[in-house]
Amino acid sequence: MATVDVILAGKYPAKSHARRVAQLLQAHHGHGVSGVIYLEAQKTRLIEDNDEPMPFRQRRFFYYLSGCSLPDSHLIYDINADKLTLFIPPIDAEEVIWSGLPLSADEAMKLYDVDCVLPTTEVNATLLTIGSSCGGNAVAFAIADQVSGGTEFQGFAETNLSVLKGAIENARVVKDEYEIALLRKANDISAKAHVAAIRASRTAVNEREIEGAFIATCIANGAREQSYHPIVACGANGATLHYGKNDDDLVDHATQQRKNNILIDAGGEYRAYCSDITRVFPLGGRFTKETRQIYEIVLQMQTECIAMLKGGVQWEDVHAHAHRVAIKGLLALGILNGSEDELFEKRISVAFFPHGLGHYLGMDTHDTGGNPNYGDKDTMFKYLRVRGRLPVGSVVTVEPGIYFCRFIIDPYIQSSELGKYINAAVVDRYWAVGGVRIEDNIHITQDGHENLTTAPKAIEEIERLAL
Amino acid sequence: MATVDVILAGKYPAKSHARRVAQLLQAHHGHGVSGVIYLEAQKTRLIEDNDEPMPFRQRRFFYYLSGCSLPDSHLIYDINADKLTLFIPPIDAEEVIWSGLPLSADEAMKLYDVDCVLPTTEVNATLLTIGSSCGGNAVAFAIADQVSGGTEFQGFAETNLSVLKGAIENARVVKDEYEIALLRKANDISAKAHVAAIRASRTAVNEREIEGAFIATCIANGAREQSYHPIVACGANGATLHYGKNDDDLVDHATQQRKNNILIDAGGEYRAYCSDITRVFPLGGRFTKETRQIYEIVLQMQTECIAMLKGGVQWEDVHAHAHRVAIKGLLALGILNGSEDELFEKRISVAFFPHGLGHYLGMDTHDTGGNPNYGDKDTMFKYLRVRGRLPVGSVVTVEPGIYFCRFIIDPYIQSSELGKYINAAVVDRYWAVGGVRIEDNIHITQDGHENLTTAPKAIEEIERLAL
Repeated sequence: MATVDVILAGKYPAKSHARRVAQLLQAHHGHGVSGVIYLEAQKTRLIEDNDEPMPFRQRRFFYYLSGCSLPDSHLIYDINADKLTLFIPPIDAEEVIWSGLPLSADEAMKLYDVDCVLPTTEVNATLLTIGSSCGGNAVAFAIADQVSGGTEFQGFAETNLSVLKGAIENARVVKDEYEIALLRKANDISAKAHVAAIRASRTAVNEREIEGAFIATCIANGAREQSYHPIVACGANGATLHYGKNDDDLVDHATQQRKNNILIDAGGEYRAYCSDITRVFPLGGRFTKETRQIYEIVLQMQTECIAMLKGGVQWEDVHAHAHRVAIKGLLALGILNGSEDELFEKRISVAFFPHGLGHYLGMDTHDTGGNPNYGDKDTMFKYLRVRGRLPVGSVVTVEPGIYFCRFIIDPYIQSSELGKYINAAVVDRYWAVGGVRIEDNIHITQDGHENLTTAPKAIEEIERLAL
Repeated sequence: MATVDVILAGKYPAKSHARRVAQLLQAHHGHGVSGVIYLEAQKTRLIEDNDEPMPFRQRRFFYYLSGCSLPDSHLIYDINADKLTLFIPPIDAEEVIWSGLPLSADEAMKLYDVDCVLPTTEVNATLLTIGSSCGGNAVAFAIADQVSGGTEFQGFAETNLSVLKGAIENARVVKDEYEIALLRKANDISAKAHVAAIRASRTAVNEREIEGAFIATCIANGAREQSYHPIVACGANGATLHYGKNDDDLVDHATQQRKNNILIDAGGEYRAYCSDITRVFPLGGRFTKETRQIYEIVLQMQTECIAMLKGGVQWEDVHAHAHRVAIKGLLALGILNGSEDELFEKRISVAFFPHGLGHYLGMDTHDTGGNPNYGDKDTMFKYLRVRGRLPVGSVVTVEPGIYFCRFIIDPYIQSSELGKYINAAVVDRYWAVGGVRIEDNIHITQDGHENLTTAPKAIEEIERLAL
């Protein structure tokens, strides 16, 4: 059994997560706070005007302190007693006929890292017992809009709905060994799916078939859900950053030629943990000269940025470095004119690399705690989803890209001030490239980093797989 | 080009749907009603605590009168003027950078069967114009909880939020040629996916791989969404009617033998229209004697029921006939004891066939207009999702099944009154069969019916494909 599978054969560390969140609450609220952390799972909900359940996605706050993916469950962590209790729905006799027996309390105790399992009918009684025993200064910490109408915080001096969410969001930034194993597993499955996508491209005629191969491989390997809607974008579609139609023919109907390359940004989700991987590979087995040139620049952006990563690194510095590498590469191709420093100061590379270098990754694709500043007037940093220093144990995507998107580049070319920095005649040779992005998931360690992403990205390797 | 594709190359008949709904409203509200039908598309919504959009599913009421799958759109049908206007979101300059140009009004006019396309900013002005011109007796028909806060029905004598939904639900029961073509297309794609699933089963080790093959084939052929959560249930899992985990090994770990058969209830959705198909096939290439016996009974139930179908048939009669065939078959196997009539009167076959024979199918899997009576005390009819006569043009699933589910059968066996009708020792030989259900989608015509489902179901054919 691989190391990852050995770790994952154990329980999700819900109890230690509960303790970490309680410590953050204590720090915020003053020492000696007593009371409970109260959380609810996502509810079973029906599709509007329909009798089918909505696709279920567990609430991340609940999962972090339980590891439990059951809908309609509740959780109470008694801070003083250090006791974590999971409440699961009681047996519904009518439902058993159609769905079989639900998980029993004994089975739940074996699965989850909790001290006690009770039916949800016991939530209020448990709250009352804890609230009454704390001597009148107990606080019930819960999340606004995530408390059912029937729940009563009796005996508590205060119900605080404002600080728990932020505390869990902060706790989630630093991942423990188990969470890293989950992220690695999601990555391993998705790497297989990326290879399956490359293989499917050999005979595919439409983006759809490649997307199908990706998703099927994820499902077959245990990642039933995608972390986010996949992007499967051939040729110029790759320049549309939020492309998601994934239904274009791989042949350019004007030229009757197969488009040169395809960008896939997709990752499976494993037990609520995400992967987020982008690869670009050739559709005809070989990159054109232009795509290869851009690919090499982006790969160098990524390689140099990853090399900078270790605990405490300032993320803005890494992002700025990616722009420096892009500027040097685009200068060498004759796409940009001017000095590296002037191009950097004038933010010209933003026309080709408009988004941020990456984001935290965890139970959400764009994970909590990044503190972005979308109001930033500086176009280079406006869309950066993480600001500040990366702590040891955080996981971040590194996803530089270079795109040839007319909606973004044309205003620069037409600008009386900035037009001189871009050589429009050279850019014309690159529109067919669409976009190149290469994205890996990186675990930040004390002395450096670990790359969790194993999907191939060396040109020789992907050209071999695509042929 | 196949006939279906020729039909579907034309526009979805939104205008004729609007007229039908208006006629139903006139019939309900008295002749000479003037005013508008007002509908809204589903909104773009984010996943809770996340910045990703929720999977988008268009509102069926809106789609029926527009054929349009754009989120955040609106629709006004001016009843007097017979004028259908679609309102689409205006261009958002910031969004174009990330997502490209949205559909233009001119493009929308080419795609949709409407008289006019305007930006959503024109909704209130259009309502005011129509309301003011109707001479003080105009009614605005809309659906409760599906009207945005900003919409104002100025100039209308009445805003009626109670009858439109029901009128559209009734109109949807009878499908036109275009809708039949959509249902046929969804069926054709799903038939390919069922064959792909059988083929994948030859080498698969887990239900997941078979589900992955099914979904991939749907996506590759243009059915991005599943009509409902697929059921992929090997061996005894097939006895759990709402099984949906789809992650069990195909090998029985107790015996180290491959389970004998697998039930797949799955169908792709094509342009908002559903398919709903169940097949059972052998995992080792051949059915066991027991599974084959049950399969033959269920296939006979289905064949005889389908043969009864034509416009005006009483659905309860067809459902009851399925039970008669089941009783005869189970008597022949020695599973039941007694006379056919007594077993029927005592509802004993409900222990093996607990659900209804089928339901309407259209834009919802369990489509509108079935008028079920879940309060019915008669266990044979309680879960029947369609009551009454089937009109010409309706589409219904025919999905008889026989299941060996302990939670359902054991109470019968243990009953002092009913136990004598079931031969428990014989039933013991059939638990491993799990369940057999065979489900096709049938279009009701004047003189008979058309089977829209082309997935193979003859024993010889599926055994050949599975081998």
